Amino acid sequence: MIAITRPTLLLNEKQCKINIQRMADKAKRLNVQLVPHFKTHQSSEIGEWFKGHGIENITVSSVKMAEFFARSGWSNITVAFPFNMHEIPAVNRMLKQNVKLTLFVVNTEVIHRLNEELEAPVNLFIEMDAGYGRSGVSTKDIAKVKKLAALIEAGHMTNLYGLYCHPGNTYHANSVEEIKSIWADVIQKMSAVKVALGSAGDSLKIRVGDTPGCAVVEEMEGVDEIGPGNFVFYDLVMNYLDVCTESDIAVAMACPVVAKNEDRNEIIIHGGAVHFSKDHLFDENEEKFFGEVVVLEEEGWSPILEGIKLVSLSQEHGVLSATPEVFEAIEVGDVLGVLPIHSCLTANLMKSYTTFNGQEIKHLESF
Amino acid sequence: MIAITRPTLLLNEKQCKINIQRMADKAKRLNVQLVPHFKTHQSSEIGEWFKGHGIENITVSSVKMAEFFARSGWSNITVAFPFNMHEIPAVNRMLKQNVKLTLFVVNTEVIHRLNEELEAPVNLFIEMDAGYGRSGVSTKDIAKVKKLAALIEAGHMTNLYGLYCHPGNTYHANSVEEIKSIWADVIQKMSAVKVALGSAGDSLKIRVGDTPGCAVVEEMEGVDEIGPGNFVFYDLVMNYLDVCTESDIAVAMACPVVAKNEDRNEIIIHGGAVHFSKDHLFDENEEKFFGEVVVLEEEGWSPILEGIKLVSLSQEHGVLSATPEVFEAIEVGDVLGVLPIHSCLTANLMKSYTTFNGQEIKHLESF
Repeated sequence: MIAITRPTLLLNEKQCKINIQRMADKAKRLNVQLVPHFKTHQSSEIGEWFKGHGIENITVSSVKMAEFFARSGWSNITVAFPFNMHEIPAVNRMLKQNVKLTLFVVNTEVIHRLNEELEAPVNLFIEMDAGYGRSGVSTKDIAKVKKLAALIEAGHMTNLYGLYCHPGNTYHANSVEEIKSIWADVIQKMSAVKVALGSAGDSLKIRVGDTPGCAVVEEMEGVDEIGPGNFVFYDLVMNYLDVCTESDIAVAMACPVVAKNEDRNEIIIHGGAVHFSKDHLFDENEEKFFGEVVVLEEEGWSPILEGIKLVSLSQEHGVLSATPEVFEAIEVGDVLGVLPIHSCLTANLMKSYTTFNGQEIKHLESF
Repeated sequence: MIAITRPTLLLNEKQCKINIQRMADKAKRLNVQLVPHFKTHQSSEIGEWFKGHGIENITVSSVKMAEFFARSGWSNITVAFPFNMHEIPAVNRMLKQNVKLTLFVVNTEVIHRLNEELEAPVNLFIEMDAGYGRSGVSTKDIAKVKKLAALIEAGHMTNLYGLYCHPGNTYHANSVEEIKSIWADVIQKMSAVKVALGSAGDSLKIRVGDTPGCAVVEEMEGVDEIGPGNFVFYDLVMNYLDVCTESDIAVAMACPVVAKNEDRNEIIIHGGAVHFSKDHLFDENEEKFFGEVVVLEEEGWSPILEGIKLVSLSQEHGVLSATPEVFEAIEVGDVLGVLPIHSCLTANLMKSYTTFNGQEIKHLESF
């Protein structure tokens, strides 16, 4: 195994490529276009792995990330975030370099500003909310959608491309059936909006963006494009939702054991909030935990160990609580694997990936 | 005011310098040595601001951070984390460059390894646990302290420097009186350990490391050194503990408003978990929140606004919940200030500070 001295984010390159392949195959099978979200990996190199599947259009979550991937050679980028009007100068710089941008709008102010200040045209999605309740125009508010659509079409710098929905409520579903039911509802509501727009709606694309739905839903009639991100790595949240198997998870933190506390059967690892993020899940006893432990192997890791969990994080410390048997088997100086709760945030903190052959793969911020 | 286009961590340089001055003055007044913890700011430039107060010795939370500050010219560094034996080669590299290092030990294995593999001597603190329950040898376990002390003294590369305690339980205290009482207990327990060590204990330094205690305790008899970190910026946790006033908080996130949802009186800002971290507090109704809102001004910000709070975070989105009046007063395109819950984690994510005159101050990872 490669030598680990510090908290390190291990990437199972083979599994990651399988995850990409599987989503690309599914999109082809269901006749939808995969426009993958790159906010999870934020890596130029991992981005390259999509190109073999014919992917030319990508999604990101900020203009800064769009700038990064534009520099990495991507020329058709959706910024899946209600557009921040202060970013117009940055958008103009990218447009000048022939990057084709698709932005999100949810209000008239931003459409006006885009038409006043853009130096070249952009495509726009109207972001829709079909029940998640974060951002987006409610699918019930047909009057507002019509108003935005008319304003976009009247603008000389804005072209209405489609309707986008991120049904983030699938992350809180209790079963795969519930995820499927949320999607059926989303598709029905989005299609109704399109119909309500009349002829203006005919050419609009419908894109839906969550990994849980994109991974498990097989009925995508009415959807033109999907934009999942997390599926490249998956994580414990996705595994708890039954959206992926444990073995689909393609990243694990490697953390050195620095201390053992015999009185409490607790083990201290170097691996804290600055490595994992503070996202957590609750176990069967409603106890919060921050990661599951695996044994690192030459080219991968074991199934999740029973009897040990990452139960607390401070800035650099992680505290594992273990049964006496598991506690005994672990020694100071061991390097343990820990599957992350939320791989997007862990990757964002770690800023680089290490493959099983020791290659370092960079993340946006490391450039 | 400086133009803000993206989520930006604003630093009130004047207040930060006041916070440093105040802690340095207090240390002098109470006759303890301030060995400030640099894990909060992680900035070479902010580090320089301590030098005017005669600070030559600093504390960090990882060997990586020690390497960074060694490159920035600091030559006496405590790594306040149970030493990870895999870092010995990195320690040897710093020792070769005449950096004087003080490490933490909590077990015999690490002391053996240090003596086997170090190429020059280091000072060691035995980390003590006086009731916090994270890492450290229990102050009740005199036999273990004696064993470790003897082993350290017998080693040709290890010199016993002192006893260190981070009473992190002060972060969960319900009053300033409780913080003071925790400290009185820590001092009493640490002093008892020192006495129990007999003549071996005479020359040992006692260092205590939490910001809440260092900020409010006035009785430090028995303590030789203090190692607080968070006080440079403070944050909402410290304000809720009554450890600092609201106006002592020296950092605020500046976040553009990108959307308003009239149905729910919710405002969407660009500012999410990748900017703030997911640390939170609970309001008087036991509702979780992730930051308090302020109005940004030319050289600072207003008091905390009533009737609005940052109630939810996803990767890039922040959701503010507001009363109808506050909701009406905020417009898409405004840039709001948000005081962070936990400034150490926000700074670690943002990786740079912007002062009121637009100067950018770098953080460790940006180098």
